[in-house]
Amino acid sequence: MLRPGDTIGILGGGQLARMLCLAAAPLGLRCHVYAPEADGPAFDVCAERTVAAYDDEAALGRFAASVGVVTYEFENVPAETAAFLSARVPVRPDPAALARTQDRFVEKSFLRDLGLEVPGFEKVDSLAELESAVARLGRPAVLKTRRFGYDGKGQAMIREGTDPADAWAAVGKHPSILEAFVPFVREVSVVAARSLDGTVAEFDLCENMHRDHILAETIVPAAVRPETATAALAAAEKIAVALGYVGVLAVEMFIVEDGAGERVLINEIAPRVHNSGHWTIEGARTSQFAQHIRAVAGWPLGSPERLGRIRMLNLVGRDADAWPEIAADPRAHLHLYGKGEPRRGRKMGHVTHVDKD
Amino acid sequence: MLRPGDTIGILGGGQLARMLCLAAAPLGLRCHVYAPEADGPAFDVCAERTVAAYDDEAALGRFAASVGVVTYEFENVPAETAAFLSARVPVRPDPAALARTQDRFVEKSFLRDLGLEVPGFEKVDSLAELESAVARLGRPAVLKTRRFGYDGKGQAMIREGTDPADAWAAVGKHPSILEAFVPFVREVSVVAARSLDGTVAEFDLCENMHRDHILAETIVPAAVRPETATAALAAAEKIAVALGYVGVLAVEMFIVEDGAGERVLINEIAPRVHNSGHWTIEGARTSQFAQHIRAVAGWPLGSPERLGRIRMLNLVGRDADAWPEIAADPRAHLHLYGKGEPRRGRKMGHVTHVDKD
Repeated sequence: MLRPGDTIGILGGGQLARMLCLAAAPLGLRCHVYAPEADGPAFDVCAERTVAAYDDEAALGRFAASVGVVTYEFENVPAETAAFLSARVPVRPDPAALARTQDRFVEKSFLRDLGLEVPGFEKVDSLAELESAVARLGRPAVLKTRRFGYDGKGQAMIREGTDPADAWAAVGKHPSILEAFVPFVREVSVVAARSLDGTVAEFDLCENMHRDHILAETIVPAAVRPETATAALAAAEKIAVALGYVGVLAVEMFIVEDGAGERVLINEIAPRVHNSGHWTIEGARTSQFAQHIRAVAGWPLGSPERLGRIRMLNLVGRDADAWPEIAADPRAHLHLYGKGEPRRGRKMGHVTHVDKD
Repeated sequence: MLRPGDTIGILGGGQLARMLCLAAAPLGLRCHVYAPEADGPAFDVCAERTVAAYDDEAALGRFAASVGVVTYEFENVPAETAAFLSARVPVRPDPAALARTQDRFVEKSFLRDLGLEVPGFEKVDSLAELESAVARLGRPAVLKTRRFGYDGKGQAMIREGTDPADAWAAVGKHPSILEAFVPFVREVSVVAARSLDGTVAEFDLCENMHRDHILAETIVPAAVRPETATAALAAAEKIAVALGYVGVLAVEMFIVEDGAGERVLINEIAPRVHNSGHWTIEGARTSQFAQHIRAVAGWPLGSPERLGRIRMLNLVGRDADAWPEIAADPRAHLHLYGKGEPRRGRKMGHVTHVDKD
């Protein structure tokens, strides 16, 4: 268990690391941010900084020696980096959880083996395998690289008339999976935390709207039946327990409706704090960031109680130009990430509205 | 008006500066902390740091050149420092407000001239003046140095039987004032903000309990009649306007009861964010820290709406040893300031409880 005054190491210097630093400070915990880019938004709010590559073993060694635990803000931490660090200092969540979620085929297989429902999927290592997978799963279907995809990158839709060869080229002929297209009625997510002693605490079910494959809006609670929400939360808890997870994770899910009612299909696991949980900063008794810090520090979790009806809007690219109007709105909680250029598709900030239930 | 990405300079590196930094970051504003002590708690959460004396003009010059506005976390900023900086960069609140509040005689005279009720007071520059002041104001009375007193330092009580010479020695024979003792029923404070365009926003009236002259507990709302609360808020607004104040200030007041009902006497002005406003971090829609940042950045103020019934407890000295129990209490919001040694009388943190109204 870390004590006040101890230091948490964070791999990655983006907005998630920044908000983790802001949540650690009130608990008396210091943060040491390690990232390859010198201009990471987290560097503005941390006690210690290392700017170095993830394969710089000298820098990693000094980093490990300066912290009581290491965590990360992104799932694509190189396996060698995680292994190097975990030989020297506790890494939470465990690198084994990363390994399970860095590869979409491994991840879907893990979920299916847990008895959870996932969209149909097939492993695709060649155009020939893609063609036979399309024949089995039907169209439309989505081709996704097994590794390093996010925000719609490394994906290609195969519709009626799409030549599989074009899709295979679009994902760079990388090892991939083909997923059956799910005619979902909603996208939802569960943001859950598991502590070192195995206690699980979950925020209420989030409903997410995407634009151009990027989260645009989250509302809480999701407009689903109570039993559907219960099933979604139970699935996320099952995943957290099966992974032996310590920290916050998000599970993205599809809600489909058929004659039998609503069903939950698991889409993917994000082994980190998650954009769909940003509303918890003002909208829950404990934020996802404080919850993650508590978990990786070995502290008890806080209460995930929701404090009102939530609407969170991402500020993507030039959306952030509206900051003066948002700052003037007494009902809006503005969050800007301290990034420079409002590039297209870049997450610049978010706004949360909390209204009485 | 500062823009996201701009930098606010803060004089002082204590917990108030730390919480100002934590409030500036979500607004996309960077902080540069300037303090003489290298181990200030604010240094753990700021983008830029200067460790230098307040009379180091080279360091002050570089500091002024690196920021868009300067503010401070404590009222005893040397007048020369404030003057040096305000010749180079906007300083908010204005150093003239500091000058009005750094000297108790000037401050009380200002308040009386505004038509506000203050405890009877007399200027005391010698033992002879003290003896005649005691004769006029009666006993008990409190002798206080005109400058640099806080948390009960630089004060001596003159009761029946106290030799004025002993009290005069106790305050170091510094220029002082003698104040009539006020048989108050409650101590309260108003935490108010005034923006650059003159808008005033006030948090609800706080009721404060002190122990050993240090704030121990704040509850909100204060248990006073509605018209008393209204009068207290009106007095604070009058002060903020008369000072041409920009930023957050706190006005400490006594509530006395007599046949005519409750009356408000002004005790003193703190030209900065204030311990009795720490509850606003979770207990109000906008925290006093975000409010101060907004004001000094030239932004519109946020809503001071209270979100529940409040109880804030200071963690002084070894109180902070209870952090594991507080961290495990799902109703408690723990704040630790990242200070090392829990010395007697040292403010180490606070805990806020927000309960449904």
